[in-house]
Amino acid sequence: MATLTTLALDAMGGDHGPSIVIDALTQALSTFPEVQFIVVGDDTELQPLLDQAQLLGNPRVVVKHASQTVTMTDKPGYSLRAKPDSSMRVALELVATEQAMACVSAGNTGALMTNAYFTLKTLPGVLRPALVSAIPQQQEKFSLMLDLGANTVCDSETLFQFGVMGAVAAQAVLGIERPRIALLNVGEEDTKGNDVVKAAAALFQQSSQLNYIGFIEGDDLFSNQADVIVCDGFVGNIALKSCEGLADLLLSNINENIHKHWLTRWFVKLFYRRLKSSWEWLKPDHYNGASLIGLRGVVIKSHGDANARAFYSAIEQAVAATQRDLPARIRDRVEQVLLEQE
Amino acid sequence: MATLTTLALDAMGGDHGPSIVIDALTQALSTFPEVQFIVVGDDTELQPLLDQAQLLGNPRVVVKHASQTVTMTDKPGYSLRAKPDSSMRVALELVATEQAMACVSAGNTGALMTNAYFTLKTLPGVLRPALVSAIPQQQEKFSLMLDLGANTVCDSETLFQFGVMGAVAAQAVLGIERPRIALLNVGEEDTKGNDVVKAAAALFQQSSQLNYIGFIEGDDLFSNQADVIVCDGFVGNIALKSCEGLADLLLSNINENIHKHWLTRWFVKLFYRRLKSSWEWLKPDHYNGASLIGLRGVVIKSHGDANARAFYSAIEQAVAATQRDLPARIRDRVEQVLLEQE
Repeated sequence: MATLTTLALDAMGGDHGPSIVIDALTQALSTFPEVQFIVVGDDTELQPLLDQAQLLGNPRVVVKHASQTVTMTDKPGYSLRAKPDSSMRVALELVATEQAMACVSAGNTGALMTNAYFTLKTLPGVLRPALVSAIPQQQEKFSLMLDLGANTVCDSETLFQFGVMGAVAAQAVLGIERPRIALLNVGEEDTKGNDVVKAAAALFQQSSQLNYIGFIEGDDLFSNQADVIVCDGFVGNIALKSCEGLADLLLSNINENIHKHWLTRWFVKLFYRRLKSSWEWLKPDHYNGASLIGLRGVVIKSHGDANARAFYSAIEQAVAATQRDLPARIRDRVEQVLLEQE
Repeated sequence: MATLTTLALDAMGGDHGPSIVIDALTQALSTFPEVQFIVVGDDTELQPLLDQAQLLGNPRVVVKHASQTVTMTDKPGYSLRAKPDSSMRVALELVATEQAMACVSAGNTGALMTNAYFTLKTLPGVLRPALVSAIPQQQEKFSLMLDLGANTVCDSETLFQFGVMGAVAAQAVLGIERPRIALLNVGEEDTKGNDVVKAAAALFQQSSQLNYIGFIEGDDLFSNQADVIVCDGFVGNIALKSCEGLADLLLSNINENIHKHWLTRWFVKLFYRRLKSSWEWLKPDHYNGASLIGLRGVVIKSHGDANARAFYSAIEQAVAATQRDLPARIRDRVEQVLLEQE
C-alpha cells in the first residue's frame, strides 16, 4: 500500500467556524482517496460535527485537540506568545514534525504568517516567505502574484527571490514551462519606479536562468502579459483588494440599473446562469487559497470568510503543492540561482 | 466688464494630437462665456484646425506658438533640459507669469509634474505636489484619491500634507463640508502597515483640525467610507491602474458570454443604453482630469488618450479649481495646520 499524503486542517480559524471545514473535508475525502486528514481544533466542538457528518471512525480522519483558537483580531505577536496551543500552531507543528505534509488554515493572515515562519522556518537561502495566489487573466488563463501581504517592506533581493519562487510555483502548479516573470511598477520604462524595484530589475536582468520580461503596470495585471507578477506585500495587498472593491461597486451598480425595468428583470432571470458564469469564474471560491511559499513545508491560507466550496478549493491546492513537492523544488531552484549570483 | 478667467491649453501633449483639444475648446467656449483660452502649440498645425473650427479671430481664443513638443516617451529630466520651448512648458509659464490662471495638458505625466514643479514651485510649506483625482463611490458619490503617481516615495509628513491638501480640494471641488480623511493601508488596525503609514497616522491623530477616520483597506476604496484617500504615488498609481485592468477583464468576459446566444445579443441591442449607463458613469471621460495640487497655480492633467469629451471635462475641472481659487485655499490651510504643529 502506498504511503498516504497527510494534511493538517486548522478547523477553528475561519469566520464561519469549524462546520465549513467539516463540509469541505467530507467532499475532499471522496475526491482524494489517497489523502488522510488531521483535523485540529477544539475536541468538544469537533466531535458532534464529525458525528453528524458520519466521519467518526473514518480511518482517514484523525482529530487532534487544540485548546486555543487564534481570533481574527489577535495580533501576530500575541498569537505567537500567548497561544502556543492554538489550532493554527498545532496544525503547523504537525508539518514541522513531518506528521503532516501540508497545513490549511482560514485563520488570521498575519498570525498564520508569523506562526508559520516561527514554526517551519524558511528554506535555506530564502530571505522571506511570500503569500502567493493565482489571479485570473484574459483568455481564461491564470497567473501567480506575490507577495500579497506577508511582507509590507521588501528589499530588492527579496523581490528577486519572490520571482524565483513564483516561477517554480507557476511551473509546478500552473504547468507553465518557462514562466514569464514581471515586476509590478508605475511605468514600463527602466527609469520608472522607486529604488527597490529598479534594483530588483537589475538582479533579474543579471540572472541567466529566469524568463524576466520587465516591468508591467497595474492595467496589465489581468491582461495575460506575465505568468508571475512580483511586488511587495503592501502594494500587492492593496492592488488586489482594490480590485475586489471595484468588482463590488460594478456589481451593485449593474444590479441597480437592471432592476429599473421589468423586461431587464425578466431577462436576468432567464439568463441568470449565463450571466453568472461571467462572474463565477472570477470569484475567489474557484481559486481560493493563497500559498505561503519559501517555508520548509506547504501552508495554504484560505479566505477568512471562505465557504465550504472555497475551503475545499484550498485543500485541493494543498494536495497539488504536496504531491508536486513544491518546497523541495523551490529549495533546489533558489540554491541554483544563488550559486549563479556568487 | 468683469475680468475674464484665462486658461492655457497645451494643445500638443495628448496621444491624439491637437484636434481633440480644438474640439474640446469649441465646446468650452460656449459653456463658459466668462473664460478665455490661450492655445499653446505649433502654429502651423494649430492655424488650419482653428480655421476649420471657425475660431480664428474669436476674441476669446489666443494662439501662443511653441516650437517643441514633449513626447510620451520623453524622460522628465530630458523634457526639462532639452525642451524649454515645449507647448507644455510654455503653457505652465503662462501660469507662472500670471498670464493664465490654469494650465490643462494631456501630455506625459512625469514630464508635466517635473515641468510644473520647476516652473510653478510648491506653495509655502508644501513639501511635494500631488496628483489627485476623483474616483467613483457607492451611492453615485465621488471621493478624492492622492497621490496617484507624482511621488513614488513619500515620507509620513508628505502623506500628512496630502491629507490636508486633499481635504481642501474635497471641500472646494466636491462641496463636502468636513471631508473624512483616510490612509490606505493593508489593514485597519493601528499595528498594520509599514513605518511610513503608521507615522503618518500619528500625525493625523495629533491634528485637531482634520476629520481623520483612520486606515482603510483596498476593498473599501469605492465603498464611500472616506472622502479623501491618501497613499504614496507608487501605491496609488498601481491600485487605480489595477482596477482599470480588472474592468477591462470583466467587460471582455461579459461580452464574450453575451455573444454566445442570439437572445442575449438581441437583448443587449435593445437595452444597450441602460446597460451602458451602468458603466458610463464609471468611465474616466466623465471625471477625467487629475489635478496636480500643492503648486502655485492650477495644473490639470488630462488622460493621454483623452477624447474631446474627456479633454473638455479636464477644462471644466480647471475652471472650477480656478474659480474656487484652490491654490490660495490650500496655502491658507497648510499654513494653519503647520502652525498647530509647531
